[in-house]
This record gives sequence, C-alpha cells and structure tokens, in this order.
Amino acid sequence: MPIVQIEMVKGRTVEQKRAMVEKVTDVLVETIQCKKEAVSIVIREMDKEHIAKGGVLFSDM
Amino acid sequence: MPIVQIEMVKGRTVEQKRAMVEKVTDVLVETIQCKKEAVSIVIREMDKEHIAKGGVLFSDM
Amino acid sequence: MPIVQIEMVKGRTVEQKRAMVEKVTDVLVETIQCKKEAVSIVIREMDKEHIAKGGVLFSDM
Amino acid sequence: MPIVQIEMVKGRTVEQKRAMVEKVTDVLVETIQCKKEAVSIVIREMDKEHIAKGGVLFSDM
Amino acid sequence: MPIVQIEMVKGRTVEQKRAMVEKVTDVLVETIQCKKEAVSIVIREMDKEHIAKGGVLFSDM
Amino acid sequence: MPIVQIEMVKGRTVEQKRAMVEKVTDVLVETIQCKKEAVSIVIREMDKEHIAKGGVLFSDM
Repeated sequence: MPIVQIEMVKGRTVEQKRAMVEKVTDVLVETIQCKKEAVSIVIREMDKEHIAKGGVLFSDM
Repeated sequence: MPIVQIEMVKGRTVEQKRAMVEKVTDVLVETIQCKKEAVSIVIREMDKEHIAKGGVLFSDM
Repeated sequence: MPIVQIEMVKGRTVEQKRAMVEKVTDVLVETIQCKKEAVSIVIREMDKEHIAKGGVLFSDM
Repeated sequence: MPIVQIEMVKGRTVEQKRAMVEKVTDVLVETIQCKKEAVSIVIREMDKEHIAKGGVLFSDM
Repeated sequence: MPIVQIEMVKGRTVEQKRAMVEKVTDVLVETIQCKKEAVSIVIREMDKEHIAKGGVLFSDM
Repeated sequence: MPIVQIEMVKGRTVEQKRAMVEKVTDVLVETIQCKKEAVSIVIREMDKEHIAKGGVLFSDM
C-alpha cells in the first residue's frame, strides 16, 4: 500500500498531473511489485515563495 | 505529543472539521493515554485533481 | 480517501495501536462521511531524542 | 524542485529501491518537465503494525 | 541533504518567510554540518480552521 | 503553532540534534514572531539507501 506525496511548484496542467500519477504508479508496480490499485498519490502544489534551496526562496531566485 | 496530519478532499464544513478534531483527539487520549492538550492536528484539503488511486486522478473517476 | 499520519513517541503496545486505528477510522467515517475502507492510517514512532517542544528535546525534559 | 516521499511496507531489496528512485525520477522529468538533478526522493519503510486500511492494521490482515 | 517542512498559520509576510528560510538554513549548516546548498525548505500555510490543539480548532479559540 | 519536520541522514550526535532544535526554535520565534513553547520539531533520520537525488540513492554516490 505505497503512499506517495509529491511536492512541486504550481503551474502544471491537469494533463501533466494525469500523466505523472499514471506513470509513477506504473513504475511502482513494476519496481516494487505492489498492486496497482494499492498505490495512493497526493500532489501538493507550492507557491515559489514557499520553497527554498540553500536559504533562498524560489521567488527570489 | 502526538502530531496528526489528515489529508482529505475539499468540501467538508467547519462543523465537520470541528467534530473530527474533537473526536480524533478524544480517541487518542483514550487509546494511547496521552494528554488531551498535547494532541496537535493539521488538516490538509486537496483538490480532486491532486489525489490519485491506482494511477487515476479523483477528478477523472 | 482520507490519509492520516500519526507521529508519536515509541512505547505503545500493538493492542493500543490496533484500538487507535480502529477508533480513529470510525470517527472519520462518522464525522466526515467517508467510506471506512477508504481510510488509510500511517503510524510513525519517534525516539524521545527526535521530538522537541519549545526548543528542548523530549529526552532532555 | 519536486520532493517525493514514498511510504511503503518494509521488505524491498536495495536493488528494488534503486530501480524505483531511478524510474520515478525519469517519469517526473518526462511528465512535468523538471530537471533530473532537481528531484529529491525520500523513502520511508513501515512495519506492518504501523499501517492500517479500513481500521485494520496490516499485521492483522 | 536535509529536507525541512514548516507548517504554520497563514499571515506572515514574504519578508518574514525570507528571513526564516535564510536563518533556519544557516542554523542547520552550523549545527549539523551540512552544505548550505543541500538544504531544502518547504513552507505550508494553514487556515486557522485547519489546525487544532487539544481537540479545538484555532479558529474557535 | 509551527510544526517543523526535519528529514536528514543518520549519524548526528544527540548534542548536534539538541543544538539544532534549540536554534531552529529561536530562529522561528525571532523571524515569524511565534511563542517559543508553541514550536514543535520532529526529526526523522534516514538511511542512505532511503534518500535519492537526481535518481541516484545516496548509498550509491
């Protein structure tokens, strides 16, 4: 029963999200031999002022 | 000091959330014998296009 | 499809965990009207040196 | 800068984990057009008594 | 490669967030001896009706 | 009531963790003006085979 959480910057289309969850699920089924229907994926979108790398907000880069 | 994170699809009323956190807290106090005031609960609401099961977005089901 | 994550200090018995997930699930079904089989719960146990409050590790309290 | 957290039951080999992170990363690059080196993945393994579905611990199923 | 997630109530300015991520990063570099550019920080803002303490929503306190 | 989760590779001493939570807490109090006793911090340590960057496990780097 893998649970996947994906945190990413806002701005992807629903087509991209659809393709992402479909393919991430397929990869889990293939590599860790779980059942397809057991895979849950949660997407969390962030504003660029809510993610930082090396101490700098993405909105300031 | 239990910390509870609850991820759920948008659309519940504040009355439902109020009842949920009250009763989840009571259940923790009762079952794992922690202090009531020590329980923190965070709710995160998701759009249906941000949750998938079996490789399919909820917004596509 | 609520996903619940519960972070707590180590030391509870499996009986306590069993009661906790059963009752937390029932409370969600009752308060936010989801299906019982849709509720996933993940428990994460922590050492006391991995949780802090007010800047102090639990292992130092 | 996607951050992926994967929660799964213990018992996979390092070869499976290696294949999983490699392919999940490739899928993100392909579907959401991020840079490969920007993808971080965290794996968290769980005991069967730390995950529940429908109110029942996996260790009791 | 520390990954930091900070959950807090809405209402801080971008200046506060900028200072927070800069200083949290510096503290990690200093205390756990990691590289500055390796530190990722994700901020998640919550409405007061999405956080509870002792069974009571912040919006009800 | 900020809740901070810090994910990092295993191997730090308790002295390092003690200093880290103390100083991270001070920084939050200073930059986002919260109360010291309101800050919770959870540390999660990872094996190097449980974290990947750019599709490669840290244990393989």
